[in-house]
Formats: sequence, structure tokens, C-alpha cells
Amino acid sequence: MTTLKVPTDESVIKPDADKYPLLSAIDSPADLRKLPVSELGAVCADIRGFLIDNLSTNPGHFASSMGAVELTVALHYVFNTPYDRIVWDVGHQAYGHKLITGRAGRFHTNRKLGGLSGFPNPDESEYDTFTAGHASNSISAALGMAAASALKHEIPARNVVAVIGDASISGGLAFEGLNNAANTNSNLLIILNDNDMSIDRNVGSLNSYLAHLTASKGYNSVRNRFGKLARKIGLVTDSGKGRIQRFNNSLKSLIAKEQNIFEGLNIRYFGPFDGHDLPRIIKVLNDIKDIPGPRLLHLRTVKGKGYAPAENDPAPWHAPGCFDPESGERLGEEDNRHYPKFQKVFGTTVTELARRNDRIVGITAAMSSGTSLNIMQKVMPHRVFDVGISEGHAVTFAGGLAKEGMLPFVAIYSAFIQRAYDNIIHDVAVQQLPVTFCIDRAGLVGEDGVTHHGVLDLAYMRAIPGMTVAAPRDADTLRSLLYTAQLPDRKGAWAIRYPRGRGYCSDPDAPFTPIHIGKGVQLREGADINVLSLGALASEVSKALDLAAQKGVSASHYDMIFLKPLDDGILEKVAKEGKPVVTVEDGTVEGGLGGAVLEWLAARGYSLPVVRIGVPDAFVPQGKVPQLFELCRMDAASIARTVIMAAGKEVGE
Amino acid sequence: MTTLKVPTDESVIKPDADKYPLLSAIDSPADLRKLPVSELGAVCADIRGFLIDNLSTNPGHFASSMGAVELTVALHYVFNTPYDRIVWDVGHQAYGHKLITGRAGRFHTNRKLGGLSGFPNPDESEYDTFTAGHASNSISAALGMAAASALKHEIPARNVVAVIGDASISGGLAFEGLNNAANTNSNLLIILNDNDMSIDRNVGSLNSYLAHLTASKGYNSVRNRFGKLARKIGLVTDSGKGRIQRFNNSLKSLIAKEQNIFEGLNIRYFGPFDGHDLPRIIKVLNDIKDIPGPRLLHLRTVKGKGYAPAENDPAPWHAPGCFDPESGERLGEEDNRHYPKFQKVFGTTVTELARRNDRIVGITAAMSSGTSLNIMQKVMPHRVFDVGISEGHAVTFAGGLAKEGMLPFVAIYSAFIQRAYDNIIHDVAVQQLPVTFCIDRAGLVGEDGVTHHGVLDLAYMRAIPGMTVAAPRDADTLRSLLYTAQLPDRKGAWAIRYPRGRGYCSDPDAPFTPIHIGKGVQLREGADINVLSLGALASEVSKALDLAAQKGVSASHYDMIFLKPLDDGILEKVAKEGKPVVTVEDGTVEGGLGGAVLEWLAARGYSLPVVRIGVPDAFVPQGKVPQLFELCRMDAASIARTVIMAAGKEVGE
Repeated sequence: MTTLKVPTDESVIKPDADKYPLLSAIDSPADLRKLPVSELGAVCADIRGFLIDNLSTNPGHFASSMGAVELTVALHYVFNTPYDRIVWDVGHQAYGHKLITGRAGRFHTNRKLGGLSGFPNPDESEYDTFTAGHASNSISAALGMAAASALKHEIPARNVVAVIGDASISGGLAFEGLNNAANTNSNLLIILNDNDMSIDRNVGSLNSYLAHLTASKGYNSVRNRFGKLARKIGLVTDSGKGRIQRFNNSLKSLIAKEQNIFEGLNIRYFGPFDGHDLPRIIKVLNDIKDIPGPRLLHLRTVKGKGYAPAENDPAPWHAPGCFDPESGERLGEEDNRHYPKFQKVFGTTVTELARRNDRIVGITAAMSSGTSLNIMQKVMPHRVFDVGISEGHAVTFAGGLAKEGMLPFVAIYSAFIQRAYDNIIHDVAVQQLPVTFCIDRAGLVGEDGVTHHGVLDLAYMRAIPGMTVAAPRDADTLRSLLYTAQLPDRKGAWAIRYPRGRGYCSDPDAPFTPIHIGKGVQLREGADINVLSLGALASEVSKALDLAAQKGVSASHYDMIFLKPLDDGILEKVAKEGKPVVTVEDGTVEGGLGGAVLEWLAARGYSLPVVRIGVPDAFVPQGKVPQLFELCRMDAASIARTVIMAAGKEVGE
Repeated sequence: MTTLKVPTDESVIKPDADKYPLLSAIDSPADLRKLPVSELGAVCADIRGFLIDNLSTNPGHFASSMGAVELTVALHYVFNTPYDRIVWDVGHQAYGHKLITGRAGRFHTNRKLGGLSGFPNPDESEYDTFTAGHASNSISAALGMAAASALKHEIPARNVVAVIGDASISGGLAFEGLNNAANTNSNLLIILNDNDMSIDRNVGSLNSYLAHLTASKGYNSVRNRFGKLARKIGLVTDSGKGRIQRFNNSLKSLIAKEQNIFEGLNIRYFGPFDGHDLPRIIKVLNDIKDIPGPRLLHLRTVKGKGYAPAENDPAPWHAPGCFDPESGERLGEEDNRHYPKFQKVFGTTVTELARRNDRIVGITAAMSSGTSLNIMQKVMPHRVFDVGISEGHAVTFAGGLAKEGMLPFVAIYSAFIQRAYDNIIHDVAVQQLPVTFCIDRAGLVGEDGVTHHGVLDLAYMRAIPGMTVAAPRDADTLRSLLYTAQLPDRKGAWAIRYPRGRGYCSDPDAPFTPIHIGKGVQLREGADINVLSLGALASEVSKALDLAAQKGVSASHYDMIFLKPLDDGILEKVAKEGKPVVTVEDGTVEGGLGGAVLEWLAARGYSLPVVRIGVPDAFVPQGKVPQLFELCRMDAASIARTVIMAAGKEVGE
């Protein structure tokens, strides 16, 4: 079983026909295509109203989808979906697409256990053509689809459209896709949905370039004058239309003091156009859809379009949580001094450490607010580098900084740092450079689902020689780990991984205390069985052992803190006691803590029963974290049952 | 111990002062800088002669270094190395750099156990500033170094130079580096060493673009005429020199029907210049070295320059093996019908299968000859995609092809497919698409050393849900695995990994036979102990068990073939027998076959002694494969000793 199955939530709440007369009548894009262009504006208004209504109570990605409404309607209106393929990059922006492809009635289940995915998901609909969630993959995937269509000599020719944002297109994978697309004659249309934002404000020179393209004032007036002169010297003739188009682009670039990168890559460039001018987009799409070869259409859109609070301050409205649709007040979570978010603890701690240690620098890849590195960024902007969506570069860049004596703290989500695996090995670990990877959103992340869970990191990090791999059970331990990671005797690369969520903090202002590298702690003493846990799941284990104690099973509980190096002292003790061992981790059980403990024991000639609790060897769907813990038998009650059975006792009712 | 240590080969053979009068007098770049420019040509001639002489008998990367001689001399002449930093991308081209930075006398140890690394290696010399070996990392690393220098307010300002080839710069990582470099004011010079080749001929539109830049004939004559006109209409004034430069670039782009991508990215572009015109390069470097901000200097070079056979046919001369320096005859290895290279077996088999199954397509990332996919490419060019150095794109592109019904076989080296880890997970495995990863150069690769060993793949592939992971023990098994991977009942993603080297083939023309997925085979029956091996190391195990038998230890030997899914039948039998188990694999012992077997046993309540043989948890240096096997105790004699001890017998003398 490659994916853990949960029952599909099939419940349907049709859109209110009074409030959303047009949307409620659209069961598929075929219905959309029956409407005259003049009515499509009203469809867009319905979609926006429906999104505001639904997302205010069932939170999701808001501003991106609001900005892509006209684009979405235009694509399904012009192209023959699902025969023609639309590949959404990341998929934050695809809610409108879900609504008009037959899923409006199920949209109340969005991001819930058994409900609609918050991202395009081919298992859910034939209109969702490819997995989305990790940025920058759309051009490569769409190019593969177009190549397959050509190899199969499909008639009619199948159009393939990749829709990619200005943040995603700066990722190296997107560039590789562009570089290859341009080299083929594939029937590929790339829509650049340019809202000048990723989750945080966008960075990188490609982004400045896009802004310049748009800002090239006076282009049209100079164009005529200059065009005449160019003809005069015979450089441009009326016969060569293609050449004139290139000429115009080159001229525009010249005036904007920029060059057209896409034309340089041999991709025909059209734009920029107003991405909210629906009749215009439809006309342009119709004009260019049958031009052979790769093309790029550049649309300027406004993130959060149609909802003033989001238009005015798009960053927090990327995924705003619940909100009051009238006032735009976001119903945020409260701060809790003794139970803070791990993210916030990271942000405040690294800032505090950087104040004292001027070798520390912070690096993130378009997630400065998500990781809370923005706390440091505000205080010392020169020492924080947000490199945009380019995880590989973030890590190699950190390697360069470390090679010259700095202490980089690289904050990236677990599921995204997979993209930098080779960089971690080749550009950091081989040289044993002192880079600390602060791996956020590790373990099961909840509603973002299968593409966002960070459950492989323990296994793939452990395989790298010389890596130190640690996971704090609470905020206090995270503070100590971060403090220790910048002390002079730290060696080589470190990975500190912690989940989305909160952990206990005795005193956020307490003096820092170092942690003994490779040493765990005993949290509970018991007679029957030894439980070894790693990371924040320790709190679930504590509850589980309370339950077990009620059933007469007395367990010792060790928090290993470090997966690598393992604590020889604890393992020696446990091995010599010879009692059954239960390992608990919020990563895959294939090659994680449980495997490491088994290997440690085997290498020293011990053979004890070891039961491994962790994420099973399958893709885990979306849902609330406690639901997923239950699904994976990592909740307190399930852990208690496993511990009791491993201790050879009856679980009872 | 993070790196396995071997004694350094300190032996010195000084360059012959009669043959190489200038080179033999250069102990460091300081000596070079004492020479007048007029003598540097003779230095280059010495370097070339020395390289031809040495590499003809001690093989290495030849053509790239020959092409970079003037560039190397110019850089060390103009820049104050090692204070100024030169970061070589990949490092194929850095032999000249090694010779003039004090290592000519040790060059006879190049790529040997304990000898000089074939790549820049910071452990070896302060002139080697960063790990090289995997393409496209130089810009990011150099940018990190430049950022560190700025943060430390170093005086004098430290120059950082990244030297990158035209193949490497098409990698996504390089683009991410460019995109970020341009956004900073870092003191970074990028040298684009453009020889229009990677190992195989280069692909991608960026490459065509570079060729166009160079080929823009008539540029200078039009430039004057057009410049005057532009001034006439007030578009360009004599005061704005920067603007004129941009204008010139834009004009050049226009004439070349291309745009200047680098200028578009806000990187000042200079070139193209003849990379063998030493006085000119020195002058240009002096002119531009102190311009603030990121700059790119485009040099056209000839791969293999100065050695006619290599200039005429550069691909095989990338790493030609031994050759006759006079005649240019390469002393190739002979074909062996019953003991072919795994690479060749892959190439011929996939071609044969593609003839019968029109859903099969082949994909590689700039390694079509290395992986032997060029065999299929010659026969059916439309069904083979060499995407250039862009492993991530290769995999996601394969995902797109598979999503539309094709059966992609993606041939990439093990150490390089690390770069596509997230693509494998997100764009293939999550969707359970039928992509077959043909992972070449798996295990210990020999002389290329630490950056090229492919020893983590088993561990990181095993962690991915739904992956099938297999390793053939010989050519027959590889043929069967490839055949089975394209049968209708194959499911999800497959990884088939095999080493550089040869394997037994009973009959290369034998009809294909399918293999039972997830089933191993018993190769030997014995009473005392069970040995489970994976992959081509089976032949070492066979020899080892012969040796063990001589010492009175009788072993059963199972070839697991599949790491995932494991063969329940074999493991059940072995577990029930309860004899000691030895696992043997040519990957890291952290989370590989040994760990998987331990987990399998633990999950079913078995506790047996398991001894794991494999690559230890440390970086492995270069050397001949048999030497490295010995170092890692994976050679037959070492395996025999381990088996005998595990069986509880005396090893004896």
C-alpha cells in the first residue's frame, strides 16, 4: 500500500444559486464554454464571493487564488480541458480551477481529512494533470506531456499549458525547463502569472527584470520613431515579421535597460498584459494558442484581487487562517509564553544568538515569515539572505559563507530541503562546513498533505557521513540546540528539525545552556520496558506512558535528542537491561531512529526485541495533525497500546 | 571519523627542467607573477606538454584542462591568489591550476590512492577553495564567499572568481546563483569558459544562445552606423557610457537575433573573447577586475586545445584513458562478450526493448555516452532526450512523459541523481508513475573519489514509499530487470542501480526472461551461516565464501536482487533457521540493506545476530576500486574474515 487510504468525504453542499447564480450552474468547463464572454465577468465575481465565504471559515490559500480568477476562467474558456492539459505550478492559485471543474460542491471539505486537496491532485480529478505543491516543476512536467503527445502523434494536437508564478519561475528547475523547452518544438504555452509576490515579497534579479518589463514607459511612442529609422538603414524589413517582433522586444528591452530573457532563450514572449482584463486575455490566448513551439504569456495580476484587505497587504493573506469576511479581521492564534510555536522560538533565538555572535548569518528560501527568520531580518537585514525559491542555491551559498568563516543558519521546510539534498552532501558535508540546517515543518504537517509532510528527513540525513542530526522535544531543547550549534566546538554540518506547532518553554528569557552533543536524557523511569523517542512526539509518548501505567506497564522513557550521533550511554544501558525497546519518531520507519537503534544493537552483538513506531512506509494524506497521528498510530492511545503489547501485557478493552 | 584516511602519497617527481624550463621553476603563482607577459605563452606550452606526457600514462580528465590553460595562467597572473579566491566549477579543467599552485611534483599521483585529487579539493591546497565535482555550484559558492568577505569588511577587498563552463551554467543551480548574484552588489567575477561541449555535445537553448552571441558576424560594422543613428534621435548620449554599453549589447543581441540574458539578469557582460589569446585575456581581466558588482566574462575556448587528436574529436578525449602521445591512439579496453560493462548492457538492452515497446523513451542529463544511452540515441534519436546538466528537470520531465503514458528510462549517475531527490519523490513517486531510474556508477567508483561515489542511493531511495529498488549482480540480471521494468504489471517508480564495471553475461542475445519482482535467488547452500548480498558485490561474496569454506565455514548465499520490496520468503527462511546473518552491499551501512533486514526481522519479532558489511559511515577517498574495497573491508578476503567470525569460528592467520 503506497498511500494510506482514508474514506473520501463525499458530502456535497451545492453553491447557493441565489448568491452565485452563474457558478452554481457550472458543473464543468463545458458549461463555462456555453456562456458568452460578456457573462464571464459575473462568473469571476461569483468565484471570488464563494472563495471569500468559504475560506473565511475553512482556512486555506487565499490571495493567490483570488488573483488568478480571470486567468483560470480564460484558460478553461479557450482551451479544451481536460483534453488540453493545464499544469498549475505549486497550486496555491488553483481553487478557482477546482470550483469550475466540478468541485464547488465539495469545496467545504477543502484540506480536510478525506476532503479535497488544497493543491491540484491527479487522484482527485482528471483536470488536475500533475502533482503540485513544490514550486517550479510545471514547465518540466508540461514539457514532458507535450513531448509524449508529439511522440504519440495525437490528433487533434493537444495543447499543454503551464501556469507558473513569478516566484516559482526563479527556481532553478523552472530555468532548466525553460532552457529545454526552448530547444524543442513542443506545443507548450507558459503563462507567467506575475503578481510580484511569492509568499513573502519576491527577490532576485529575474523579478526586478519582470518589473522593469512592465515599467517600460514611453515604449510605444519611441517604437514608431525608432522603427522607421531601423527600416531606413535596412536592418528591419516589412517582410520579416518575426524579425520585427524580436526587434520590438529588443527595443523594449533597451528602453527598459533590460533584455528579454525569454526571447534570449528562444521562447516567444507576449506581454505584459493586465491579468484581470478578461476579454483581452481571452483574445490573446485565442491569438497565440495555435502558434507552434514554446511561447510565454506574461500576465500582471494582483495577489488578493477583489478583496481589499488582501490587496493591501498580501503577505499575511497568502494563507490567512479564519477571518471575518466583512471586516477583513484575521482571527489569529494567541501567543503563549510557555507554549510558543517552534518557529517563533527559532526566530527569536537565532536573532538573540546573532546579536552576540557576529559570525551568524540567516538564510531562507522565500520563507522568511513562515520560518520566522523575518524576526532576525528586521533587526539585522544585512545578515539575513532570503534567496527566493532556490533551496539548492541557499545551501551552496551557505557553504560558501561557511568556508569563509561564517556560521550560517539555513531555515527551510523539511519537504523543500529535499531539493537541496545534493548541495547538503557535496557543498557542505564533504567539506565538514559548519552550516546548521534548521528544518521547519518536519514530520506530519497536517492540512497541506502528502507533498508537504516532512517525514523522510531523518532517514536521508542520517545516511550522510559526519552530519549531526537532532530534534528537540520542546522549545527549551530547541533553544539549547541552537545555542550549542554556534559554540566553537560544534563540528561539521548540523540538522535540527522541528515540527509545525508548539512546544513547552519554561522561560523564553532564561540564559542559554549548552547541550551535550550526542547525549539524550531520561524523562521517566520504569521497570518493564524502555521507550526511546526523538523530537516533539515526546509529549505524545508521555501521555501514552501515563495510559500504560494505568494498565500496569511501567516504562522508562528516554528522549534521544540526537539521531546522529546516537547516545552510546543510553543504548548501552538499554541493551544491557535487555528489556523490550519501543522507538518513537515522527519520520518514516524505513531507516529512521528505529533502524538506527537496530543497527547500533546489531553492530555490538545485542539482539533485543525492538518495536518501531513512526510514519509507516506509505504516503500520508492530509488532515489535522491529531487525525494523522491516529492514522499512523502515533497518537498517545496507539503508542500506549503498542508499548503495552511490546511489554508482553494485555491491552484490554 | 568523517573521512576514511589513507596515507598521503608524498612522493615528488619534479618536472624535467630541460623539457619544461618554465613550469619546473614555478612553485606557486607568486613565481608566475614575476614573469613578463611575453613569457607566459611558454608557460602554457610547458603546461600542455606536461599534461600530455603525464595523462598519456596516468589517465585523467584531459581535454577540459587543455582548453583552460591560458585562462588558468591569466587568472593566477592577474589575481592575488590564494587571497583572491578562484572557485572552479566541476574541476575537470583545473589540472593546470594544480600544476602552478605547487603540485606539479605530485601530479604523477593524480587520482591515485593517497594522491592528488582529480578535482579541486580544499583539503589538498589553500588554492582549492571549494569542493568541486558536481556541476553548477561555483556561482553560489563564490557568492557566499563574496558575501562573507563583505560582512567581514576585509581590506583589501577580496576578489572572488567563479570559473564555469557552458554546460554547467545551464544547470538550475547556476541560474539560481546568477539570479541571486545579480541582486547583490557582491564583488564577484564569473568566467564563462565556453567550449561548446560538456562531456558530450552541449544541448539547451542557453547553449545555442552562446553560440549565436559569438557568431554575430558584422556586428562591429553595423555598430558604428547604428550608433550614430541612435545618437541622432537622442536615445543614446555620449555622456552615459553604461547606457551605451547596454545599448551595444542590445544591438548585438538584436543582430544575433538573441537577447543578452546576462544583461537581462543585471550582470555586466563582457565578451566573447578568444580564451586562448593570453595577452588579451590578461588585459581584459585587469580592466574589469575592480569594477564593483557581479560581472561575467565570456571566453571562447577549444576543448583539447593544443593536441590535435583531442581538438578534432573532443568527446572521447574528455577522459581518454591511456594513450600514445605521439600518434594519439587511445589504448581502449577490449570488448568482452561474456563480461561486458554494465553500461553497455544497459544501452543495448534498452535499445532492444525500445524497438519492441514504443512507449519506452530514454532520458539522460549530459551523460549519453557515459551511460551508453547513446546506443539508443543513434538508432531512435526522437525517443532519446539528453536534457543537458539538469538532473532535476530530467526527472520531472520524465514524470510528465509517464503521466501521458510513456515508459521513461532515466539514466543518471548515482552521485548526480541526488540532485533530483525531490523530483523523484514529488514528481514521480507520489503519483506512482512508471519511471525507471537506471542509476549508473553506483557504489564506489574509484579514481573520481569522494564526490563521485554513489553510496547513499540505497538508503535514500529505500525511504521513498512505493519505490522498487533493485541491484543486479551481473549482466544477465540487469537484462532481466530492464525487461521486467517495462512489462505491463510493473507498478510505480523503479530504481535499478549498477556499478561502473563489468558483470557476467551468459549470452547477450539470449531471449529476455522476466524476473519475479521482490524475489531473490539462492546462489549457494551451506550449513553454518546465511549471507545476503545485494548487487554486483555478489561476485566478491562468492570468492569470500570459497575462502570461508577452506576455513571450514559453510555458508548459504542469497542474492536479494531487490532491496525494496524485500524477499519475504528468503527472510522468513533465514529467520526461522536462526543462524547468524551477514549482509553485504556496496552502499552505506547506515540505513541500507543491513538496516532493512534488521527492521524486517524486528517487525516480525525475530532477534538474530546480523553483521552488516558495506561502505562505512564516512566519506571514502579515491583509489582503484579493489583498493577501496579493501579499505572498506568489502573485498573477498575481508568478507571471508567477517563471515568466519560471524559464524563463530577462528579466522586463523
